[in-house]
Amino acid sequence: MSKQNPLPVIAEECCAPLAREPISKDDAAELAKVLKAVADPVRLRLLSLIAARDEETCVCDLLPEFDLSQPTISHHLKTLREAGLIGSERRGTWVYSWVIPQALDRLSALFDTAREEAGVR
Amino acid sequence: MSKQNPLPVIAEECCAPLAREPISKDDAAELAKVLKAVADPVRLRLLSLIAARDEETCVCDLLPEFDLSQPTISHHLKTLREAGLIGSERRGTWVYSWVIPQALDRLSALFDTAREEAGVR
Repeated sequence: MSKQNPLPVIAEECCAPLAREPISKDDAAELAKVLKAVADPVRLRLLSLIAARDEETCVCDLLPEFDLSQPTISHHLKTLREAGLIGSERRGTWVYSWVIPQALDRLSALFDTAREEAGVR
Repeated sequence: MSKQNPLPVIAEECCAPLAREPISKDDAAELAKVLKAVADPVRLRLLSLIAARDEETCVCDLLPEFDLSQPTISHHLKTLREAGLIGSERRGTWVYSWVIPQALDRLSALFDTAREEAGVR
C-alpha cells in the first residue's frame, strides 16, 4: 500500500480573496499552478467525479467515463495530486483517490469573497 | 467610445457545483476555457487589481504594477475579457476595465459547494 500524499502547492495561509486586496506575485504564481491543473476538461471532470462521491474513488470506476487509456487517466490524476487537489493511495491493482476539501475551499474563497467585499448581489 | 462586452463563455445556467454531481462534458469544456484564462500569474494579478477596486480601472494604473509592455498587458486583458471575466471600455487614450461579478460567483460556486455537499468542515 503506497500512500501518495499531495504536494502542498498552496501554503496553509494562502490566499486572500482576489477582490479584497491585490494578490501578491508569489500567491499568484502558486495559485496559477493549481488553476492550471483544473483548467482542463478531463481533469475538471475527474475532479468532479471524485468529489461527487462520498467515498474514495477507484480509478477503475473513472475509466468507463472517458474514451482515454488508463495511463492517460493516471497522468491526469497525477497532475491533480501534484496540485494538492486530490490524494491517492494504491491498493493492490488499483489506485483510489479522494479530494482535498481545503484545496477546493481555497479556490472557492479566492473567487467567492469578491461578492461580499465588492458589495454586489 | 467603444464598449467591449465580454463574450458569454459560461452560459447563465452553468454550472452545478462539481462536488454535487459529476460535471457534464460540455460544462467542463466551457469552464476549462474560463479557468485557463485565470491560470496565469499575470492575468490572476490583473483580475485581482481590477476586482480590488470599487471603480473601473484604467490600464494606465495597471501598467506600473508589471514589468511588461502595454501591448502585453492589453493582450492579457483581452484574454480575461474573452473569458467573460471582465468588461472593458475605451475612453480616449485609455481602456478602462471592471470585473463581471457573476463570472467570479460561478467559479466560486463551482468549488465552494463542495464543502456543503460533502459535509466537510
